[in-house]
Amino acid sequence: MKAHISILLLFLIVTCYTGHAQTHHAQPGQPNFIVIFADDLGYGDLSSYGHPTILTPNLDKMAAEGMRFTQFYAGAAVCTPSRAALLTGRLGIRTGMYGKRSVLFPNSAGGLPLKEITIAEMLKAKGYATGIIGKWHLGQLPEFLPMHQGFDYWFGIPYSSDMGKIGTTRYSPDNPNATAPKPNAVPLPLYRNDKVIEEEPDQHYLTQRYTGEAINYIKKNADQHKPFFLYYASNFPHVPLYASPEFEGKSKRGIYGDVVAELDWSVGQVLKTLKDLKIDKNTFVIFTSDNGPWLTQLDHGGSAGILYEGKNSTYEGGMREPAIAWWPGKIKANAVSSALTNTMDLLPTFAKLSGADLPKDRILDGMDISDILFGKKDIVRNMIYYYINESLYAVRKGPWKAHFTTHPSYSQEAPVPHDPPLLYNMDVDPSEKYNVAKQRPDIIEDLRKEYEKQKAIIPAPAQMDKILPATGIK
Amino acid sequence: MKAHISILLLFLIVTCYTGHAQTHHAQPGQPNFIVIFADDLGYGDLSSYGHPTILTPNLDKMAAEGMRFTQFYAGAAVCTPSRAALLTGRLGIRTGMYGKRSVLFPNSAGGLPLKEITIAEMLKAKGYATGIIGKWHLGQLPEFLPMHQGFDYWFGIPYSSDMGKIGTTRYSPDNPNATAPKPNAVPLPLYRNDKVIEEEPDQHYLTQRYTGEAINYIKKNADQHKPFFLYYASNFPHVPLYASPEFEGKSKRGIYGDVVAELDWSVGQVLKTLKDLKIDKNTFVIFTSDNGPWLTQLDHGGSAGILYEGKNSTYEGGMREPAIAWWPGKIKANAVSSALTNTMDLLPTFAKLSGADLPKDRILDGMDISDILFGKKDIVRNMIYYYINESLYAVRKGPWKAHFTTHPSYSQEAPVPHDPPLLYNMDVDPSEKYNVAKQRPDIIEDLRKEYEKQKAIIPAPAQMDKILPATGIK
Repeated sequence: MKAHISILLLFLIVTCYTGHAQTHHAQPGQPNFIVIFADDLGYGDLSSYGHPTILTPNLDKMAAEGMRFTQFYAGAAVCTPSRAALLTGRLGIRTGMYGKRSVLFPNSAGGLPLKEITIAEMLKAKGYATGIIGKWHLGQLPEFLPMHQGFDYWFGIPYSSDMGKIGTTRYSPDNPNATAPKPNAVPLPLYRNDKVIEEEPDQHYLTQRYTGEAINYIKKNADQHKPFFLYYASNFPHVPLYASPEFEGKSKRGIYGDVVAELDWSVGQVLKTLKDLKIDKNTFVIFTSDNGPWLTQLDHGGSAGILYEGKNSTYEGGMREPAIAWWPGKIKANAVSSALTNTMDLLPTFAKLSGADLPKDRILDGMDISDILFGKKDIVRNMIYYYINESLYAVRKGPWKAHFTTHPSYSQEAPVPHDPPLLYNMDVDPSEKYNVAKQRPDIIEDLRKEYEKQKAIIPAPAQMDKILPATGIK
Repeated sequence: MKAHISILLLFLIVTCYTGHAQTHHAQPGQPNFIVIFADDLGYGDLSSYGHPTILTPNLDKMAAEGMRFTQFYAGAAVCTPSRAALLTGRLGIRTGMYGKRSVLFPNSAGGLPLKEITIAEMLKAKGYATGIIGKWHLGQLPEFLPMHQGFDYWFGIPYSSDMGKIGTTRYSPDNPNATAPKPNAVPLPLYRNDKVIEEEPDQHYLTQRYTGEAINYIKKNADQHKPFFLYYASNFPHVPLYASPEFEGKSKRGIYGDVVAELDWSVGQVLKTLKDLKIDKNTFVIFTSDNGPWLTQLDHGGSAGILYEGKNSTYEGGMREPAIAWWPGKIKANAVSSALTNTMDLLPTFAKLSGADLPKDRILDGMDISDILFGKKDIVRNMIYYYINESLYAVRKGPWKAHFTTHPSYSQEAPVPHDPPLLYNMDVDPSEKYNVAKQRPDIIEDLRKEYEKQKAIIPAPAQMDKILPATGIK
């Protein structure tokens, strides 16, 4: 009974919040926000982050005109919970975006709970146009699609682009049929708003089409003098890798490099559009990625560069990402920040910059980082938490990171507990090579307290293991 | 008898060459050359090469104003042969700069043979002033010192700065006496020209003093309108690590980061001096390092970033280096080059740019890369050879690298032969993770030919194992 009352109360709160918010209208001077989100891009995969053969002149220029982050984290080490964290400013453990299957699949029945408040919902309530171009991956049942989560326009794909009939997730040089059709799979759907407009779209042209859609979306809103939030979530460089003829075969790094180069071009087109429309000085753009490189894909996966490990790992390579913030006239050119920052910080930061109301009835894990962006502070947050599903594996406080659990990201082997935890100084030893647990029992003690405190969070009900009744879909 | 005639002939050739050359005078428009050479700096240790917590704003600005190389190699994986290769444009196997002891020590009796022609000798013959500020490490007996190898000014130390009484080469957190005095060692000498002016100079101030000396040298020659070659060879970030009070304790990366930050500052001072004197448009500056990071020094050693392994390894981390070329008005700003390039290329390139005569009586391993610098070509050289002493371990041709031998750089264990060799595509797989020998027998066959051809070189007599009679020195 108590539970029912809670749910009712929550329903009322959400309804009130949304209802109240929707009476707002756009106010002059509200900045536009663009989040460009890559898929499985590694920390070491851009030229400005040290890759020797992937040339990314547009992102490098964006960095030269803006701020390049060196300790910016994704909200999780895999796709679905990371995207949920970005859009809600909350950890997966709070939203329920975890489960035995750590991401959503075409036969999943779960999704981001509708009671969660996304950046889109928050900004829409403040009069913003809210568009998503690209990958969703937060629930593919009709009720979970972007149009029900605060977006008023969508062009894209509901999950990873290897989840259609074409394209296995296990590329290898010995597996030349990596892009052969999979039996019993659903064709990959391409949506416009609530409708599937194509099945198995030719992925060679996906980046070109997303770019065109993004530019149109920006132009339309600029024409109407309407502030906008554009969430441009590329399906690349996640496997299967496809580039358009203009880019295919051009990079020294092979098809992975071709795909990153086309994404780099796409970012350049977006920034050029803002400059051409003379709205660059009123638009905050951030580029980052959902999680680290998918190392099991061999050379079809990326590289975390100086960091250890990749996707699905709580070592740094799994969650620390390239991140470039750009806002001419507001963010200083050629800035490099090593402040601890997180995709979950975007929601509170956008709230601050737009005057939108922050959700007050729930705990947010993100923090307003506008003082970092504008060079007013060097530190805003001190803690980073590293989860695999609902399990807290590691905590970072300032430079110190303690791993209480690790698991091999490459295999199905069991997680390994560590007592005392492995201890690394991330500022001194970014590659997590030198365990100094023995030398620093004082730090261990402090981090153990932080770990226990965070462990006390009671997980929201798991969304990721809800599976559709057998339909032949897989 | 035949050997004696050869030596006589060689003597005559060298004498004639030098004699002829010394009649030249400086010609108007000859550019100045500055080589700034770091010691044990890793590929991943600069901000512009992806380090998260070492901030290097001056080197990053140098890169933004010039050309950043991503596949630039040292001539060897350890100090002495690398420096010999830089100054002569020749591999250690040709100059004899190899041996069981792979570098020179304070009790070494060998040095760079005087018949070798250094960049300094080549440019001096063309009327250049030739100065070296910093570390020599090409022979510490009087006859091998810089003043006998073409330099007309020296301020610095004859070998590594851990070779004095203070500072062991084996730093570890469990070895708090890493900088305790060593018994029986010779005090570290600081030279000006041919004279020792101090013993065990306070290394905290070494970078400050080198910087002051470099600036003075530049100013003096600018005042006299004399073209100059300045070889500024820092002793850092080789252990033991020392920074001046202005830098010590300031970097998030610890003392290693402090030392790199001070070196970065020093580079900034050099470039500022050139601009202040308005000779920047007539000065070619290149910054690079002698070999990869010394990984056994734990956090007192650097990082190769995305590359595998470090100093004393023929994996990429041992020999590929950050390299930034700068010449305002001649080298395009914001250029990034992934062309194969090498420290040995500097001698032929300087010859081309200064009009100096290239030594014609010997084989050079370097190639003129001015067309790369000026954006006229993308490729000049196709081959890189990886030696440990006189043993050829690996060859790279275009993107392909075959390891015929590897050895653990961390231990004294025996080298491991590989047949078939390990094969990596360096452009696609810069971390040398995916051996594709099985998939590409055609490439193996081609690289085996290159390997055999290069193996046919008859080594010059080894210089590195000549040891002084027992003197108590070690």
